[in-house]
Amino acid sequence: LYLGVDLGGTKILSVVAGAGGKMLSRDYTSTPAGKGPEAVIQAILKSAVRTLKNAGLSKDEIKAIGIAVAGISNPETGILYTSPNLPGWKDVPVRDMLQRGLGINAFLINDAKAAALGEFYFGAGKRARNLIYITLSTGIGGGIIIDGKLYEGAGGAAGEIGHMTIDVNGPKCNCGNTGCWETLASGTALAREAKSRIKEGAGTTILSHSKGKIGLVTAQTVHAAALEGDKLARELIRQTGCYVGVGLANLINIFNPEMIIIGGGLSHIGDMLMEPAKEVAKERAFKSSYKAARLVFAQLGDDAGALGAVAFAHQRVNR
Amino acid sequence: LYLGVDLGGTKILSVVAGAGGKMLSRDYTSTPAGKGPEAVIQAILKSAVRTLKNAGLSKDEIKAIGIAVAGISNPETGILYTSPNLPGWKDVPVRDMLQRGLGINAFLINDAKAAALGEFYFGAGKRARNLIYITLSTGIGGGIIIDGKLYEGAGGAAGEIGHMTIDVNGPKCNCGNTGCWETLASGTALAREAKSRIKEGAGTTILSHSKGKIGLVTAQTVHAAALEGDKLARELIRQTGCYVGVGLANLINIFNPEMIIIGGGLSHIGDMLMEPAKEVAKERAFKSSYKAARLVFAQLGDDAGALGAVAFAHQRVNR
Repeated sequence: LYLGVDLGGTKILSVVAGAGGKMLSRDYTSTPAGKGPEAVIQAILKSAVRTLKNAGLSKDEIKAIGIAVAGISNPETGILYTSPNLPGWKDVPVRDMLQRGLGINAFLINDAKAAALGEFYFGAGKRARNLIYITLSTGIGGGIIIDGKLYEGAGGAAGEIGHMTIDVNGPKCNCGNTGCWETLASGTALAREAKSRIKEGAGTTILSHSKGKIGLVTAQTVHAAALEGDKLARELIRQTGCYVGVGLANLINIFNPEMIIIGGGLSHIGDMLMEPAKEVAKERAFKSSYKAARLVFAQLGDDAGALGAVAFAHQRVNR
Repeated sequence: LYLGVDLGGTKILSVVAGAGGKMLSRDYTSTPAGKGPEAVIQAILKSAVRTLKNAGLSKDEIKAIGIAVAGISNPETGILYTSPNLPGWKDVPVRDMLQRGLGINAFLINDAKAAALGEFYFGAGKRARNLIYITLSTGIGGGIIIDGKLYEGAGGAAGEIGHMTIDVNGPKCNCGNTGCWETLASGTALAREAKSRIKEGAGTTILSHSKGKIGLVTAQTVHAAALEGDKLARELIRQTGCYVGVGLANLINIFNPEMIIIGGGLSHIGDMLMEPAKEVAKERAFKSSYKAARLVFAQLGDDAGALGAVAFAHQRVNR
């Protein structure tokens, strides 16, 4: 049995599960992100204890903990360099802090890579050997499974697919670069475009889903307006989908994967986003490689990261 | 012992080598590309026989043949779908034709992938486990080595890194797409930009290296002018280098490789091309991943493809 933790910017999910992915219990708690690393680790420890208690288990029955966090981290040292969800965190030894707190071996992994492992072992990718998992969210992250194994690269930082340039003259990205895929195809990009069009005076009902405030326009409120038939909202989602497709074509040409799994909050928009994405990917990628790549949605929802952290801990313990 | 063949658009190189890369003999002959597949296969067979004779060997001493060809092919079926170097070839069963002709097991591989294997086993990449080989030439091709193995993808078409979009609004590519890396960072791109600037009336000595004819301007003649201090030529090479850097940054962010090997005709320009490429890659990629990626030039020169074909044949025989 393993503990899997998905540490997000607003909430923490802890699960106890077997190496086969069977979940025995789970616990949600909020992330005291503003209070710094120590407070957050304490919240994780409390959540872990509750999760064990819910399952009627003691600490001795847990082989290891896996913890998934957004951001750049090193799986070998267990240090989280930076995280977009945890402002101000810098070089935090997350793994060692958890290990000390619980007295159980801990392993740190990037959240998108964890979700990739989760979907590969227990979700949409169960039958594939080579796949790419993509999380379309406020940013774009990814995990690459090659020959049945997570590909981590030289320093554990492989899979930063959101930061491939697809428009060398495109908008500025948080990473310092310009025209990264995530500046054009993420939820943040969709909201930014919507705000800019509203400021220009475009006719739309998006604001009525955003309490009338332009500052509250998000990918979700654009989607809500689109569902009610708002033309601008539909056009913006289509445009974002087209940019999703450009990045998909790149990944298809580079990896010739057998499967691409699309997860993350933005993927909940579904076909309204993915139909234009597929059209563009089909148009831009090599025919045979496009055909070979099954494009599917993620299946594990919010559990992907925590279950992937379980799979990662299991792998590390047994390597 | 193995036969390795590198089939190019203008010449054929055949070598006999051991699985360790030691070359016993080699033979160059020209490619009768205009005469169609049968004639080209006959030329390869004759070259193979000469190569064996030069080494004082008989056919029985050869375990298998590997043949490297530019273009999209399937290593499992041995069929070459299309090749940029062999106009008009479509779905040619190269492997079976060779096999029948020589009575020895044959294996077909893309030329950039073969060069990647060659450099990995016998050249610049001997000590790496995860590397990307890039050929900067009239186009841009690549080969991906992951965990000590060539990564082929679902249908053997992985590694088409020249066809990742880096400028979604960029120039049209031969593949049908727009803004592919190779439309901006290949030798063809460099020559195209030079021609366009000369037509606009720019002052340059490039034409004096091209027999005064704009149609004869190539990456080589631009380089020759740059070596003599021509300002435009230097500026164009710098610009091409910057685009090389954009693609390098993408590959560094996606793969976090320990090594990137740069080969191909354009790489002979050397630092004048690669210094701006490195600057841009450093600026655009994640710092830790940029640092981890050793950027080196290929070491095997024209032999990389044929020696890689030997390595590929050896792998396939022993899998």
